[in-house]
Amino acid sequence: MVFLDNASTTPVLPEIQEIINKYNQDVFYNPSALYTVAFQINKDINKARQNIVKRLGGRPTDNLIFTSCATESNNMVLKAFIKKNTKALVSMGEHPSVFKTAQELKNNGYNIEFLKLKKDGTIDIEYFSKVMTNDVDFISIIHVNNETGAINDIQKIVAIAKRINPRVVIHSDGVQAFGKIDVNVSRMNVDLYTISGHKLHAPKGIGALYIKDNKFVKPLLNGGGQEFDLRSGTENVSGIMALDKASEIVCDNRKEIFDRVTSLNNYIRNNIQNAYIISSEKASPFVLMVSFAGCRAETILHMMEDEGFLIGNGSACSSKKRENRNLSEMGYRPDIIDGAIRISFSRFTTLQDVESFVKSINSKVKEYIEKVIK
Amino acid sequence: MVFLDNASTTPVLPEIQEIINKYNQDVFYNPSALYTVAFQINKDINKARQNIVKRLGGRPTDNLIFTSCATESNNMVLKAFIKKNTKALVSMGEHPSVFKTAQELKNNGYNIEFLKLKKDGTIDIEYFSKVMTNDVDFISIIHVNNETGAINDIQKIVAIAKRINPRVVIHSDGVQAFGKIDVNVSRMNVDLYTISGHKLHAPKGIGALYIKDNKFVKPLLNGGGQEFDLRSGTENVSGIMALDKASEIVCDNRKEIFDRVTSLNNYIRNNIQNAYIISSEKASPFVLMVSFAGCRAETILHMMEDEGFLIGNGSACSSKKRENRNLSEMGYRPDIIDGAIRISFSRFTTLQDVESFVKSINSKVKEYIEKVIK
Repeated sequence: MVFLDNASTTPVLPEIQEIINKYNQDVFYNPSALYTVAFQINKDINKARQNIVKRLGGRPTDNLIFTSCATESNNMVLKAFIKKNTKALVSMGEHPSVFKTAQELKNNGYNIEFLKLKKDGTIDIEYFSKVMTNDVDFISIIHVNNETGAINDIQKIVAIAKRINPRVVIHSDGVQAFGKIDVNVSRMNVDLYTISGHKLHAPKGIGALYIKDNKFVKPLLNGGGQEFDLRSGTENVSGIMALDKASEIVCDNRKEIFDRVTSLNNYIRNNIQNAYIISSEKASPFVLMVSFAGCRAETILHMMEDEGFLIGNGSACSSKKRENRNLSEMGYRPDIIDGAIRISFSRFTTLQDVESFVKSINSKVKEYIEKVIK
Repeated sequence: MVFLDNASTTPVLPEIQEIINKYNQDVFYNPSALYTVAFQINKDINKARQNIVKRLGGRPTDNLIFTSCATESNNMVLKAFIKKNTKALVSMGEHPSVFKTAQELKNNGYNIEFLKLKKDGTIDIEYFSKVMTNDVDFISIIHVNNETGAINDIQKIVAIAKRINPRVVIHSDGVQAFGKIDVNVSRMNVDLYTISGHKLHAPKGIGALYIKDNKFVKPLLNGGGQEFDLRSGTENVSGIMALDKASEIVCDNRKEIFDRVTSLNNYIRNNIQNAYIISSEKASPFVLMVSFAGCRAETILHMMEDEGFLIGNGSACSSKKRENRNLSEMGYRPDIIDGAIRISFSRFTTLQDVESFVKSINSKVKEYIEKVIK
């Protein structure tokens, strides 16, 4: 099977699995225990924390807490920072864990305005500049969109926002960005940044939240006081150590990998037939959304599985209840939306993978159009 | 090292680690993806769900959702069921993930009454019968206390409560009970029951919440709609499958193991010197709290680590901020509290382990008393 659905999840790498085995079986102690061998695990966790902050471009005074997933990090941020008298801006291009949380808060009477998207899937900065007033105190804007790969210019958005209200708290969901495109939380000047393990070859069940200047965040989970009392619950030690290693791996040679994945992405853009390319050329090369108007995405997806290729359709995180929020916002017609598939790459995707994929999808779609549609 | 701190956490068993490896590396797909190999993972998750419900004594109409840990299950329950006009009863013997969550809700003006403990660490059922009125609509009582092993008679408590208010929702934290003492959620007639993976030789980062009759619980995490929209976030597939296997293992021969662990527990009760036995003889045999009044627990713990034995002091989940809520509630003097250690067993603890432990602790404590105290 050629796996071209890396935006939905990734396999755990063997060297990461070794680390998991070690912390699950050998040094499996509860970090809250008072014996020396447990203290050492605490040190390992804190070293992992510092490593990841550094790889995100953070400073030594910044904090990072480990959570069970990006969904938890995102829920925690929104539920802590959006309060009764808060005015908040949230983009229409967010992952459901931000968008639906914001929607629920709005339904409960909270003052949240949703930011429009442009045709390329990024937020409309001109519109943003108009609605960004000095009473806006919280903003959440995704860094790289999970369906289209659209990259928001977080640095520019933060600069505009903080010029208008220097106290505004800005969160960005960086799940599809970290380890893929250039990420530097200090340069972007974001206050909060979400990352996920399983998109980076670490296991499912581990995520993190970067917190600038150790700014206080109200916990979502109360209890034993772990993670500076910001996230109670026995630490997922093997997951944390796996995320540390995964972040090291994906940050290694990131620029070269970016260029290589860009060429794979371009190979598909240039050679795929009968397809409308949805993802902007400025999007992250790791995600490519195309549509075969007239063919349903599920049909293409199953045909391709039979051929040995796994691809996605929109956000795998909510694909069972098909959501077309992004594409609708971007102004696409229903037939384009229904035929949209997502091809997503990892640093391990090869030219051979994409060549055989293009050959196969071109032939199957042609066959389908001739037999079924015409 | 002889590990006698199994109430804090447990090592992942090799056969469970194999399952983790499989779902992390081979069938690593996102269960929300639409291809066949991902559907199969969904089936595996649902089979695991049914297996665990069955092992808990639940019926096919009951539900169970997977969470990141017992702390999450407990927070989710309290934050969903304790509402503005709810009258709730919560025991003083709860794990911090229930107790502190309830305390915070109470501080925010919610109507919560805390239930007193008796000298044996169980709740005072006589007192409970008085405060249980027909306007109480939520109750949370721990099944087996994590520090003392005290077993609450949940079946009796539920019968009293539901006779007074048939609509009352009753939650029990079964982290230290499931797979150790006799657990049957149907017979106990609880509505919600929390379990944890890492106390049962599954990894850290996986827990579950049993939900009787599929009774609605408001989610704590919004997003992609996983777990019947009750717990969004990509499923921790390897953790779920590990919990399934772990629950199978700990339920296998549970009664024989219980008897064997009881005899190990009794061996220590009968042979440990200079110690005051805190845990009641009716407590779970898997947890034994004793105190060396006059010796600080930390001192004993470090002496024993040097001798090759790892033991706990109170709740490892919050031991850094030493809490003596249970022992204070049970009416113990400060010197007994300060000297309290927790010895906790697994099904793999051997007679040789406890014999060498008793020999060692008796000799070291005697030495310490002679040299330091006298």
